[in-house]
Amino acid sequence: MLIRNNPNREEWTEITKRPVIDSRTLEPDVMKIVEEVRVNGDVALKMYAEQFDCLVGGDLLITKEEIQEAINLTPESLKEAIKQAKLNINKFHEAQVQESVLVETMPDVVCWRKSVAIEKVGLYIPGGTAPLFSTLLMLGIPAILAGCSKIVVCTPAGRDGKVNPAILYTAQLLGLTNIYRVGGAQAIAAMAYGTETVPAVYKIFGPGNQYVTCAKQLVSRQATAIDMPAGPSEVAVYADETCNPAFVASDLLSQAEHGKDSQVLLVATSESIAEAVEREVDLQLELLPRKELAGQALENSQFVILEDVDAAFGLLNQYAPEHLIIASDDAKILAGRVINAGSVFLGHYSSESIGDYAGGTNHTLPTNGYAKAYSGVSLDSFVKKITFQQVGQTGLRNIGNIVELMAEAEGLQAHKNAVSIRLKSL
Amino acid sequence: MLIRNNPNREEWTEITKRPVIDSRTLEPDVMKIVEEVRVNGDVALKMYAEQFDCLVGGDLLITKEEIQEAINLTPESLKEAIKQAKLNINKFHEAQVQESVLVETMPDVVCWRKSVAIEKVGLYIPGGTAPLFSTLLMLGIPAILAGCSKIVVCTPAGRDGKVNPAILYTAQLLGLTNIYRVGGAQAIAAMAYGTETVPAVYKIFGPGNQYVTCAKQLVSRQATAIDMPAGPSEVAVYADETCNPAFVASDLLSQAEHGKDSQVLLVATSESIAEAVEREVDLQLELLPRKELAGQALENSQFVILEDVDAAFGLLNQYAPEHLIIASDDAKILAGRVINAGSVFLGHYSSESIGDYAGGTNHTLPTNGYAKAYSGVSLDSFVKKITFQQVGQTGLRNIGNIVELMAEAEGLQAHKNAVSIRLKSL
Repeated sequence: MLIRNNPNREEWTEITKRPVIDSRTLEPDVMKIVEEVRVNGDVALKMYAEQFDCLVGGDLLITKEEIQEAINLTPESLKEAIKQAKLNINKFHEAQVQESVLVETMPDVVCWRKSVAIEKVGLYIPGGTAPLFSTLLMLGIPAILAGCSKIVVCTPAGRDGKVNPAILYTAQLLGLTNIYRVGGAQAIAAMAYGTETVPAVYKIFGPGNQYVTCAKQLVSRQATAIDMPAGPSEVAVYADETCNPAFVASDLLSQAEHGKDSQVLLVATSESIAEAVEREVDLQLELLPRKELAGQALENSQFVILEDVDAAFGLLNQYAPEHLIIASDDAKILAGRVINAGSVFLGHYSSESIGDYAGGTNHTLPTNGYAKAYSGVSLDSFVKKITFQQVGQTGLRNIGNIVELMAEAEGLQAHKNAVSIRLKSL
Repeated sequence: MLIRNNPNREEWTEITKRPVIDSRTLEPDVMKIVEEVRVNGDVALKMYAEQFDCLVGGDLLITKEEIQEAINLTPESLKEAIKQAKLNINKFHEAQVQESVLVETMPDVVCWRKSVAIEKVGLYIPGGTAPLFSTLLMLGIPAILAGCSKIVVCTPAGRDGKVNPAILYTAQLLGLTNIYRVGGAQAIAAMAYGTETVPAVYKIFGPGNQYVTCAKQLVSRQATAIDMPAGPSEVAVYADETCNPAFVASDLLSQAEHGKDSQVLLVATSESIAEAVEREVDLQLELLPRKELAGQALENSQFVILEDVDAAFGLLNQYAPEHLIIASDDAKILAGRVINAGSVFLGHYSSESIGDYAGGTNHTLPTNGYAKAYSGVSLDSFVKKITFQQVGQTGLRNIGNIVELMAEAEGLQAHKNAVSIRLKSL
């Protein structure tokens, strides 16, 4: 573990740097897959499924029987947990519903915005070693709340051709029925262009490996929107003398277990805190089943000591972490200093994993410093806000001349005429 | 003008198709400019300025003297018009401010979202034949309302090295002072990477020619966010028997004068309406200074007759126009049928040009069918919505086991541990 003691601002650029992921080397391979699916549809999907996921025959669409089987296979205790998580996530996202507000900018010039659901959305849910049914909650719930009329789910099958039961249980709990046994870059292409079986959508959401990420980038250059650009997951923790080093270590490790490219940054207010956290990390790491993976991630990680709170939050805001944990008795006050972050966890008991699963906030968040300009997924991600305006005769009399003058000054005579011809008619 | 009488749904795909703009042919040239600016900074900017815009020496930063000169050169009547437009746009965007709402998803599990301004934003304002000071209002006002701490404006100078006075007048009216005499792809590169003079920003806004658009796409593949993907401007008009054909024609022409690739689609409920509008277009076109340009745009345009209102709005929603005008006595009711559009103009007196300049809504809108998934620029475009969560000991007792079960089921033991270690401490 690299510990930097009171680094000066020149070093911050180095500290906040993410590993460069050059997807250009992947692009030709991924573009080939995307094109193949665009042209050959289901045939290409089945070919790639056999090649990568070992699908054993069967339909691409998950059947009712399979869903029933999954319901039976999911333990009751897990079902209850997922149900409560659903309630919490629903409650938080429901509060994001916005009513239209009429604004009369001048007498008889009335403007408003209306949130209208994106009609067709696609949710990509990774399978493999970590079957992310939690991601299905995080994307499915706001899609349903928004009122998206077609919600397509793609998720890869395992070598036995089956999809993880908890994913299928979660889908049926949400009422989603368009679930396809398709994974990887080919799933993204299917949702972008449509095949005989998989419907085309207007916006694609969800995490994935670097092939999935690259495919999302490629389709987003054409007609399909995507949730956000993606990079490896990351956490930054601010820890002062009030922190519990064992708790902090557990949060760092829960990030590190995501994979060897995960990013972990600790900003501690003293050397003794950093050392105490490091000791705890070593102790807890030994007990983890994924300790190899987590150990590799920790090698890329950094512990920084900054005694000055302004400096500490200066660095954290420059880093713009996906997740930020403020492990301090003063967390609520310190929260006011956060400018760039995806989601912030306040105090000693708000572990990142609570937000990952069940607290209510969304876990699809901007990585790679994108938190400087991007928000995480929310209800907003599933709607367009269409503006409306209604101008009557009185309104036109009030605003007409203003528009005429401005249009003329921009050299746009026909824009002026559209007002003049109406003014003359009054 | 191509008039299609009651086309069947198979033809709709053809009708709603936009001209394919293949920016790949431009990419190598634009990438060279972007790289040159990234590496050589101001030297590259001055070189390109001389090459493309004929800058006659001088600083890149607009001086106070130049702004004073611009104020003197701007006619008082135009100043008053811009001031009123500013008030209206401000009023509409101010209503978009969102307060944080605390949501207690379970007892002692409290979550909320907070809108935090993107710190550094860049606004590109085209000069040339149409100096778009109106775009500076549309981007500058929400940036200021959001509280962006650094707002950078780039706009090209004319052959005399000067920037259009109305643009500079508008900038000073808004209180913007970081205005740079830089245009084209090189301006986008300067704002993305920063030069000795032009600060780097996190998000770039604004329209431009195909070089500017291509540069925005290129920088967005790296660290810089952009407002939205861009295509040629477009309007669709729904006109029924209550419409005024002269008004409709004036709206079609105001779109057509933007350039030869502008898109115009009329959906009329009868042949006689379409013919009446066509006659008016021919009459009004003759009187326009930009009649060559508008005439070319009209050649790409389509008049469609659909008597059935369901079919008409089906086609319009499939087209997903940037601007939609509903020229009908029933506009307010018909507005409920709009699913995909950037901004909608209701009734006989709400000309598109009112929204372009002064009504209050934003004129930076999704083109090219992107209205199916994207919103226009709003206050939201200048903020990130950061989520926060605060869980206390009681909250942890309520939610801890749920998180443990879900984390375990996803095979993420360290995520579980982060909760278990805290639960054990209670």
